[in-house]
Amino acid sequence: MKKKEEEKTLNDLGEFGLIERITKSIKLTNKSSEKGVGDDAAVLNYSNKKVVVSTDMLIEGIHFDMTFTPLKHLGYKAVTANISDIFAMNAYPKQITIGLGLSSKYTLEAIDEIYQGIYLACQKYGVDVIGGDTTSSINGLIISITTIGEGNENEITYRNGAKENDLLVVSGDLGGAYMGLTVLQREKEVWKSDPNMQPDLEGHDYILERQLKPEARKDIIDLFRDLKIKPTSMIDISDGLASEIFHLCKESNVGCQLYETKIPIDPSTHKTSMEFNINPTVSALNGGEDYELLFTIDQSNYEKIKNSIDLTVLGHITKKEAGINLISNGDVSTPLKAQGWNHFNN
Amino acid sequence: MKKKEEEKTLNDLGEFGLIERITKSIKLTNKSSEKGVGDDAAVLNYSNKKVVVSTDMLIEGIHFDMTFTPLKHLGYKAVTANISDIFAMNAYPKQITIGLGLSSKYTLEAIDEIYQGIYLACQKYGVDVIGGDTTSSINGLIISITTIGEGNENEITYRNGAKENDLLVVSGDLGGAYMGLTVLQREKEVWKSDPNMQPDLEGHDYILERQLKPEARKDIIDLFRDLKIKPTSMIDISDGLASEIFHLCKESNVGCQLYETKIPIDPSTHKTSMEFNINPTVSALNGGEDYELLFTIDQSNYEKIKNSIDLTVLGHITKKEAGINLISNGDVSTPLKAQGWNHFNN
Repeated sequence: MKKKEEEKTLNDLGEFGLIERITKSIKLTNKSSEKGVGDDAAVLNYSNKKVVVSTDMLIEGIHFDMTFTPLKHLGYKAVTANISDIFAMNAYPKQITIGLGLSSKYTLEAIDEIYQGIYLACQKYGVDVIGGDTTSSINGLIISITTIGEGNENEITYRNGAKENDLLVVSGDLGGAYMGLTVLQREKEVWKSDPNMQPDLEGHDYILERQLKPEARKDIIDLFRDLKIKPTSMIDISDGLASEIFHLCKESNVGCQLYETKIPIDPSTHKTSMEFNINPTVSALNGGEDYELLFTIDQSNYEKIKNSIDLTVLGHITKKEAGINLISNGDVSTPLKAQGWNHFNN
Repeated sequence: MKKKEEEKTLNDLGEFGLIERITKSIKLTNKSSEKGVGDDAAVLNYSNKKVVVSTDMLIEGIHFDMTFTPLKHLGYKAVTANISDIFAMNAYPKQITIGLGLSSKYTLEAIDEIYQGIYLACQKYGVDVIGGDTTSSINGLIISITTIGEGNENEITYRNGAKENDLLVVSGDLGGAYMGLTVLQREKEVWKSDPNMQPDLEGHDYILERQLKPEARKDIIDLFRDLKIKPTSMIDISDGLASEIFHLCKESNVGCQLYETKIPIDPSTHKTSMEFNINPTVSALNGGEDYELLFTIDQSNYEKIKNSIDLTVLGHITKKEAGINLISNGDVSTPLKAQGWNHFNN
């Protein structure tokens, strides 16, 4: 007797059956995607553009906790987190490959959900899935994504171009993703001590979305083109503002003055931070996964951005010798510390 | 007191320290590698070439067994297995990104050994390491490699171009990697039942090297250029000859006659196969990881290859309706079965 579709298992389907299942709905949309899934490798045509490449690996229990991460959101976030690196080059993501390792606890429906999230993000950001590798794992879920993007030679922005007197600018607001994680972890502890308790997530919609379903800032890259701005340096905020400022300053061989009062923090991030007795500035400086863009621009561009509600000038670049300093609310200057996310220490 | 270098742990070094340690020796060698490690993404220039991309994921306990896999070999094999996919497109690998997940049992020295193997393979095949992601894992070691290569439009070879009367050709010999694995697994069982026993690997050098340190067939791609041959279709043998023949025939919409007597099997593979009571043909058909190239050529090219000691004509392509058949040593034709490696069933 033939099993019904929904009763099929990973074993019934086999490796090639699974590949067919998860790739059948792929449609290539980018001109540069000549051949996608289905051969030994994909073939791309980037004749007049630079090729920009980035890789991220996400591992269950390290980067995400399945007890509170919806699978579709996980797939979505895996894509947005990775393409954020391409936007941080002032370039556009065009293709991704997906390495997926799955333990036997994952059902076909679970895999479908992950891919639904992946495809949704790809559709939103105009990215083609062109290949990958799907395999079993001993423990848990592993997602490794490589994004390939295109950039124009005169637009690609590195970390190393910041110069004295440039303005330090950030998109969106900071610390929300970390506060969302903190709430989810608290509710998990409550649930562990009493599985009959319902999680209390009310009023935390914004920070939960920041943690579970972050977006990448394509709109900011579009804005640069509209405003005819080329940042002098740029990085995306995946490890916390402080850590990223250190990267920019180190690579550019400069110092920086950062004004605490300028750091954009959403009211709900602020409120939750206070509830947890964490200084909201600390959440913004050291909380990770905001996927906002941090960049520097020449002062002459200030007029162009000053009315943008989604961009905030945080401070300015100084000589290297002046160091990297946080000017506190009380106007006291202290050397900034970059704690950030260290996957081997945290 | 400062710890000595060799006593440093992963925790002392931290994520960025580790990245610096494993990337400091990288030198970019390819013209197409404009910017490698050190920014949000790498930047490549492929202005006159097609970009060819492939991704592989290797997971401890699934794809390799640390009890008998030297780490340096593992790094080497992770690269050669992946770049083999690029050669299978009749293209040349130029860059790789490496996603590495490591559990706490791995020391810094272990990581260094893996990278030594990775860099050795990259050096041998002219490939630049341009980026990656290094993170901790809950369990064991995960290596995900994406290779980017360059191909000329008129040379790139897909799986779908085989046509009736083409010759089916394979490089090297088959089944060795599988027999090497079989010997290693036997010795592991012996060692588990009596840890004082020394593994008996004598006389198995060739098949052990096929399993632990396989090469990719760049030389065959070079040969195609020397001989001015463009294969009509090509695939690399990672899952076993039978499985790959099925892929070529399915994609090309053709059938195939494969002659058992023609399948190239090294004497040591043959001998070991007999010791394990496995028909050597079965080892060649269904054993994986040989990383040889299987391709089809127009009959007019036969004269050019007939004296190449490293190429063997295995059979020929037929109409789809004739099916995919193995002509046995006794001249009996039976439909070929593709068992291959199924990572979800085996």
